[in-house]
Amino acid sequence: MTIDDHHSRLAALRAELARRGLDGFLVPRSDEHQGEYVPARAERLAWLTGFTGSAGMAVVLTGRAAVFIDGRYTLQARAEVSDRDYEFLHLVEDPLISWLVAAFPCGGRVGFDPWLHTVNWWEKTRPKLAKAGIVLVAVGDNPLDAVWSNQPPPPLAQVRPHALSFTGCPAEIKRAALAETLRANRVGAVVLTQPDGIAWLLNIRGGDVPRTPLPLTFAIAFDDCRVELFIDRCKLGPDLAGHFGPGVTVHPPQALGAALDRLGHERLSVQIDAVTAAVWLLDRLVAAGATIERATDPCALPKACKSAVELEGARAAHRRDGVALVRFLHWLEGAVIRGGVNESAAAERLLDFRREGELFCDLSFDTISAAGPNGAIVHYRVTAASDRQLEPGSLYLVDSGGQYLDGTTDVTRTIAIGVPSAEMRVRFTLVLKGHISLATVRFPIGTTGSQLDVLARRPLWDASLDYDHGTGHGVGSYLSVHEGPQRISKRPNQVALRPGMILSNEPGCYVPGAYGIRIENLQAVRVCKASAVGGQAMLEFETLTLAPIDIALVEYGLLSPTERDWLDCYHRRVRETLVPLLEPDAAAWLETATRALGIRR
Amino acid sequence: MTIDDHHSRLAALRAELARRGLDGFLVPRSDEHQGEYVPARAERLAWLTGFTGSAGMAVVLTGRAAVFIDGRYTLQARAEVSDRDYEFLHLVEDPLISWLVAAFPCGGRVGFDPWLHTVNWWEKTRPKLAKAGIVLVAVGDNPLDAVWSNQPPPPLAQVRPHALSFTGCPAEIKRAALAETLRANRVGAVVLTQPDGIAWLLNIRGGDVPRTPLPLTFAIAFDDCRVELFIDRCKLGPDLAGHFGPGVTVHPPQALGAALDRLGHERLSVQIDAVTAAVWLLDRLVAAGATIERATDPCALPKACKSAVELEGARAAHRRDGVALVRFLHWLEGAVIRGGVNESAAAERLLDFRREGELFCDLSFDTISAAGPNGAIVHYRVTAASDRQLEPGSLYLVDSGGQYLDGTTDVTRTIAIGVPSAEMRVRFTLVLKGHISLATVRFPIGTTGSQLDVLARRPLWDASLDYDHGTGHGVGSYLSVHEGPQRISKRPNQVALRPGMILSNEPGCYVPGAYGIRIENLQAVRVCKASAVGGQAMLEFETLTLAPIDIALVEYGLLSPTERDWLDCYHRRVRETLVPLLEPDAAAWLETATRALGIRR
Repeated sequence: MTIDDHHSRLAALRAELARRGLDGFLVPRSDEHQGEYVPARAERLAWLTGFTGSAGMAVVLTGRAAVFIDGRYTLQARAEVSDRDYEFLHLVEDPLISWLVAAFPCGGRVGFDPWLHTVNWWEKTRPKLAKAGIVLVAVGDNPLDAVWSNQPPPPLAQVRPHALSFTGCPAEIKRAALAETLRANRVGAVVLTQPDGIAWLLNIRGGDVPRTPLPLTFAIAFDDCRVELFIDRCKLGPDLAGHFGPGVTVHPPQALGAALDRLGHERLSVQIDAVTAAVWLLDRLVAAGATIERATDPCALPKACKSAVELEGARAAHRRDGVALVRFLHWLEGAVIRGGVNESAAAERLLDFRREGELFCDLSFDTISAAGPNGAIVHYRVTAASDRQLEPGSLYLVDSGGQYLDGTTDVTRTIAIGVPSAEMRVRFTLVLKGHISLATVRFPIGTTGSQLDVLARRPLWDASLDYDHGTGHGVGSYLSVHEGPQRISKRPNQVALRPGMILSNEPGCYVPGAYGIRIENLQAVRVCKASAVGGQAMLEFETLTLAPIDIALVEYGLLSPTERDWLDCYHRRVRETLVPLLEPDAAAWLETATRALGIRR
Repeated sequence: MTIDDHHSRLAALRAELARRGLDGFLVPRSDEHQGEYVPARAERLAWLTGFTGSAGMAVVLTGRAAVFIDGRYTLQARAEVSDRDYEFLHLVEDPLISWLVAAFPCGGRVGFDPWLHTVNWWEKTRPKLAKAGIVLVAVGDNPLDAVWSNQPPPPLAQVRPHALSFTGCPAEIKRAALAETLRANRVGAVVLTQPDGIAWLLNIRGGDVPRTPLPLTFAIAFDDCRVELFIDRCKLGPDLAGHFGPGVTVHPPQALGAALDRLGHERLSVQIDAVTAAVWLLDRLVAAGATIERATDPCALPKACKSAVELEGARAAHRRDGVALVRFLHWLEGAVIRGGVNESAAAERLLDFRREGELFCDLSFDTISAAGPNGAIVHYRVTAASDRQLEPGSLYLVDSGGQYLDGTTDVTRTIAIGVPSAEMRVRFTLVLKGHISLATVRFPIGTTGSQLDVLARRPLWDASLDYDHGTGHGVGSYLSVHEGPQRISKRPNQVALRPGMILSNEPGCYVPGAYGIRIENLQAVRVCKASAVGGQAMLEFETLTLAPIDIALVEYGLLSPTERDWLDCYHRRVRETLVPLLEPDAAAWLETATRALGIRR
C-alpha cells in the first residue's frame, strides 16, 4: 500500500461527500459494537488513512483533513499517514469540536455514520457544534463504504455453545435473573449491544474478531425471559440447535430495525446503555415511540462476578499458562546466553509454549515483547522495523495472555538480561512494593477500585515517580481481556469490587528511551476468611497468576519483612504448583528462580 | 418547651396549610444559603418539632407527619420529638419520595419554600413526585413563618473589613480574577449565594451565625469586575466606608429580585451553582429571561487555595492554639488526678485557655468533649443529661477548634485517663499509623483527596476495622471550619489538591458503648522541594497543628521505624515551637509528653 493509494481514496471519499451535499465526514476507528477489536470490514480508518492504531478518528472536509490520535500513537500515525493529506491532532488535547468550529466559521453539514458513534458521544458533541452552526448529519449508508470497492464482508465465524462445565450457570438462569432485574426497574426490554455480554448471557462464543471469542451480534432481552438474537443463521453450527432452548429466537441481522419498531409500537419502556449503544439504535427506538430508560448494560456486572466454576477454570487456566511462562523464561535464559534472540522470536516461542497447553484457543491480545527502550512504550507491538535484540544490561518486558476455554489470562514479567543497573533494581523494587501492597490489601464491602489505586502507586510516588496508565482492569472468562464495569484506576469509578471479580494488578515504571518495568498478576476478589474479632466482613484478593518474579531485579534492602514474606510465599506457591507439571530441566530452573529471599537476609 | 407546645404548633401549621389549599409542606433544617450553621430565624425545624440536630427535614401532611434524620441523630430525635405527632424516618434509607408517594396514592399538592431548597434537590425530586401525580408547589411566603408569632428577625451583626495583613490579597485583585474567569466562560454575571465565598471575595467578615464569622448576604459579580452586594446597610460599620472601593455597590436585601430581573432583561448569560443555590433564584432568573450557566461557585476554588499570608497566619494561629491545648492537657492531667472533671467542665476550661490567645474570636465549632462511650458518638455534643465524668481506664476524646483573625483551627486528641487497655492501645496505634501514612504521602499534581483516603484507612482495614466518616475536610481562613471543594473521602471527588489548600487528617476508630479514638491535625498542601532525580514535580502536606499525641496510647511494636521517626520528629517540632511560649510547669509537662520514643526502642 502506498501513500498514493491513500491519497486517491481520500479523493474518492471527497467526491462521494460532494455528491451527497456534505461538507465533511467523520471516520472513527470503531464498529457497530464499539469493541476494542473490530472486524476487517470496520477498519475504515486504516483503509482511508493508513493508520493502524486501535483508537483514533479521521475527519475529512472538502479542503482539509485531520487524524485525531492519542499520545501513544503520535509517532505511529506520523509514520503511517501522509502529512500532505492530513493534519495530526491530539484526540483529547485538540478537541474535534474546536477544530471543526475553526474550520467552519459560517457553519456546515458534517456527516457521521450513526452505527459507529455512541449515544453519549453524540449527545455531548451535537449541541456544542450546533452552537457554531455546524449540523451533524446522520448518514444512513456510510459514504466510505460506497467508495471502498473491495471492503470485506461482515465476519461469519461459527458460533459454539460454551459448556456448563466452563460457565457454571445455565443460560436459562441468567436470562431469568436478567428478566427479574428488568421487571424490578419497570422496563419491558433491553437492547443488548455488547457481544461479550450476549455471549455471557447465552453461554455462547464466536470468532468474529481477533483475540476475543466474540460473536458480533445484537439481542433484545425481555422482562419475560425471552431473548431475540440477531445473527446470520449460517454462523450457527449444528451443536447450537438444542443449546438455546425455547426462550431464545434467532432472527437475521436485518430484522433488528423492525424489532425495535415493534418495541416502540407496543409503547414499551426500553433500556439502553448510552455509553456503548450506537446512535442508530436510539434514533430508531425514539422514532418508533419507545420510552427510553438509560442504564448500564445489565449483563456487565453479573458477567464480571465469576461463578465458582469460572473461578476454578481461571485457576486451572493460570496453572497451564504458568507452565508455558516458566518454560518460556527457562528457554529465554538459555537463548540469551546462546545469543541472538529478538523480540519477535521471543513472542513466537512464548506462543508455541502456550499452544502446548490444553484448552488453549488463542492469545488474549497481541503479545507485547519489548526489549530495552521499547519496554517504555506502554502499548508497544513488535514490527519488522522496531524488532530489537535482547541485549546484556537491558530489561525485557513481556506482557501477554491466553484465551483458554476455561479462562482468560494476562500477565506481565520484566526480566533482567545480563546484569541490571542499580537504578533498574531500585525502580523494579518500587514497582514490586506497589504490586504487593495492592495484592495484600483487605477492604470493606463497598470499596471501589479507584479507592485502592493509590496503594500500587505510593512507593513510586515516594520516589517522585508514577505511571501513566491504570493499575487494573477487569478480565473476562474466555471473553474480553479488558472488561468492565470495575477498574482500579486514578479515574473515579463508582463500581464496588465484588467477590468473583477478576482484575489485573499492574503497576509500572517507564524511562523513555531506556527501559520499561511492569509487574502484572491477575487477582480475584474473595471474602476474607480471617476477620479480626469485633471487626466487619472484609474482602481481599486471591492471586491467580503463577509465574516467577525476577529476583535478580529485587533490591532486598528496600523490602519490608512483610513484603519479603509475600514474595517468598508467592514463589513457594508458584514452585509447589508448577514443578509437578514441568519437565526436569524447567523444574530445576524454577526451583532456582523461586528460591526464598530469606536465605539472603 | 413542652411536647404540648410542639403539638399545638403542628396544629397551627396544618390549619395554615388548609387555608392555602396545600396537602402538605416540607420543613428542612436550612436557611437561604444552605449553610451548616443557620441563624435563629431559620431554626424552623426545631421550633416546629423540637429536633435540634444540624440536618433533617420534617414533612407535615393533613393527617400524618414525619421527621427525616440521618443515623447520627436517631436517638436524639426520638428524645426530642413526640412520637405521637411524628413518624421517624431515615434521611437516606427511607427516602422522602417513596414516603410521599405512599401517603398520596391519588396525587396531591405539597408545598415547599423555594428559598430553603437547592436547585439540584428540586430537579431531582420534582420529576419523581410528578410521576406519582404529586405536585411540588413553591410557596412564596413560608406558611410556618405565618404561624411562628415570635420568630426572630434576620440577624444584623456588624460586618467588618478583614485586613490585608490577614488575607494577603486585595479584594480588587480577587474581583478582577473572578471577572476574568467569567469572561473566559462567556458568562455576564454570577449570582453568589455562599456567604463564605462573598466574605472571601470582598475581604469582609460578619457574625450572623454561631462559630463562623459569616455575613449572611447575596451578591452578583459581573464580568467587568463590578459586584452588587445585597445587605442591610445597618450591618455595615463605619470602617467599611472606604473598604469596598468604587466597584462594589451596596443594595438592600429586598432589591435582589429586581436585580435578577435586570440580568434577565439584559439577556445576560448568568452563572449559578445548582448544588447550593436556592430554587427561588433560578426561578426568578429564568422568568426574567436570563440564560443559565451551571457551574461550581467560582469563589470556592480560589478561596480554598490560601495565599502565602493566609498560610503564615494559619501557622501563627496554630502556635497559639497549640499553646492553649498544651495548657489544657497539662491542666487535665492534674484535674483528673485531683478527681471530679466532667466533659462540660473540660470543654469550658479549654475555651478559657483559647480565650487567652491573641486574635482569638470564637470557637470554630461546638467542642466535642467526650468521655468513655460518648467518644464513640462521632457528632457528640455534651448536654446536662449526657455529661460524664472522666474516669480511670477510659479514653477522653476532645475535638475542638478556634476562630482566630489569622486562621481557623480544628484538632482532635484522644487521651488515656488512667491506664488504657491493650485493645485501646492497639487501635489507637492503628489510627495513628493511618494518620501518619496520610501525613507523609507525596503525590503528583492532579491527585484528588478521594485517591488518598485509603492511606488513612488501610492499617484499620488490615484489622477488619474502619470508620464511618470522611478522612479530611477543607478548612477556611477565619471562615468555615468545613469548606470545599476539596475533600479526603471514600466518596469520589474530582477536585485535585492544590498548593495552599488546608485539609484535616482525622482517621478514627469507634467502639459503640465503650470508647472512641480520633487523631486530627490540619495540614496544608505544598510543593515538595525534594524531588528525586528524573522524577516529576510532586506535592506533599505540611502539618499545621501543634499538639502532643498521647504516647501512653502508642503500642510501639506496631510502628515501623519510619513511623516512629515521624512521631519523634513531630513531637520535637511541637516541643521546640511551643516550649518557649509556655510557663515553666506546662513547658516541663510538654517536655515529658513529647519525649522521643527512640529511648524506649
